[in-house]
Amino acid sequence: MAPKYTLKYFNLRGLGEPLRFLFAYGGIEYEDVRFSFEEWPALKGSMPYGKAPVIETDGEVLHQTMAMGRYLARQLKLTGGDDWEAMLCDMAIDTVTDFRLQIVGYHYEKDESLKAQKKEVLFNETIPYYLEKFDADVKKNDGHFVRGKLTWADLVIVAIFEMLQDMLQVNFTEKYSNLKGIMDKVLALPQIKEWVEKRPKTNY
Amino acid sequence: MAPKYTLKYFNLRGLGEPLRFLFAYGGIEYEDVRFSFEEWPALKGSMPYGKAPVIETDGEVLHQTMAMGRYLARQLKLTGGDDWEAMLCDMAIDTVTDFRLQIVGYHYEKDESLKAQKKEVLFNETIPYYLEKFDADVKKNDGHFVRGKLTWADLVIVAIFEMLQDMLQVNFTEKYSNLKGIMDKVLALPQIKEWVEKRPKTNY
Repeated sequence: MAPKYTLKYFNLRGLGEPLRFLFAYGGIEYEDVRFSFEEWPALKGSMPYGKAPVIETDGEVLHQTMAMGRYLARQLKLTGGDDWEAMLCDMAIDTVTDFRLQIVGYHYEKDESLKAQKKEVLFNETIPYYLEKFDADVKKNDGHFVRGKLTWADLVIVAIFEMLQDMLQVNFTEKYSNLKGIMDKVLALPQIKEWVEKRPKTNY
Repeated sequence: MAPKYTLKYFNLRGLGEPLRFLFAYGGIEYEDVRFSFEEWPALKGSMPYGKAPVIETDGEVLHQTMAMGRYLARQLKLTGGDDWEAMLCDMAIDTVTDFRLQIVGYHYEKDESLKAQKKEVLFNETIPYYLEKFDADVKKNDGHFVRGKLTWADLVIVAIFEMLQDMLQVNFTEKYSNLKGIMDKVLALPQIKEWVEKRPKTNY
């Protein structure tokens, strides 16, 4: 039987990887379709709101990474034990999205002078500000993002951190032992470890 | 008894209003604390990640508008009939967030020349692109954002559209009758109508 899900994204980890981590963790079969930046302009018009990743399933085209991720997480019982914990997962993930948007806003800035300005703020203010708080959150939550439990927040955030570190060529965990702890823990999960070993090698 | 929830935000509709719509719709009592831009720098440090709105409840400080909104929506049975429909709500809301970020990125741009560039793209490309698709989505979904049902996607998106229209001084619905339909429908809900009539008047 053909896999139920087809993920379509660039040949990058990027925003595809949080979903690939969820598929891997859950042992959910999917087709991992990857396209190049050169192919993108011709494909963009076929995406629901001109963006990727999308997931095709049952003849429908889904979009919005975290909406799709939350759905998969619910199927995998990874949204915590109740609505409150599900919210705590969402809070952590949305905060990491704020952080990520600052980083990609710098990375893809085309104007050199603006990029230099953004770099200054990013490295001196934004990154230490967020990492310190994330580290404290993980400490307070007994080594996870939500209440000492493995949730999709852990999987998604570790996938994103790993990717952002490689995008910026920096190490987020050097000074933050709790972040190092949760990254090591997620990357040591057998299903994630297996996926990371076999996945296509990309810059980020 | 004191209300269980305290919402803290600027004296704006902004990102506070989607939550106020949910409180109003559900008849949930809350304290609507509003601060000025002048007061913000002194308050920012007390916010979990330096942002507002926050909701204080049971001694905890919650943040991230949509995470909090989704939690309230679940209590109010406004996330659709199952996990799939909950995902469809999230997809619509996250897409409106993408749209909103383009608009506020223009609105708060301080560099005049950059702002002029952003205006051009926003008004000629971004706004018509998104509105046309949103309108088609509402048409396909029988007058709502998700499958002909009233969900938190309707409440949140109408609150955001109303605010963005006033921020930009434009009318989103002139050419889009389905968007006009859902906006009229939400604003005619008795609890929302009552709230909109009595709420503090702000520019957006």
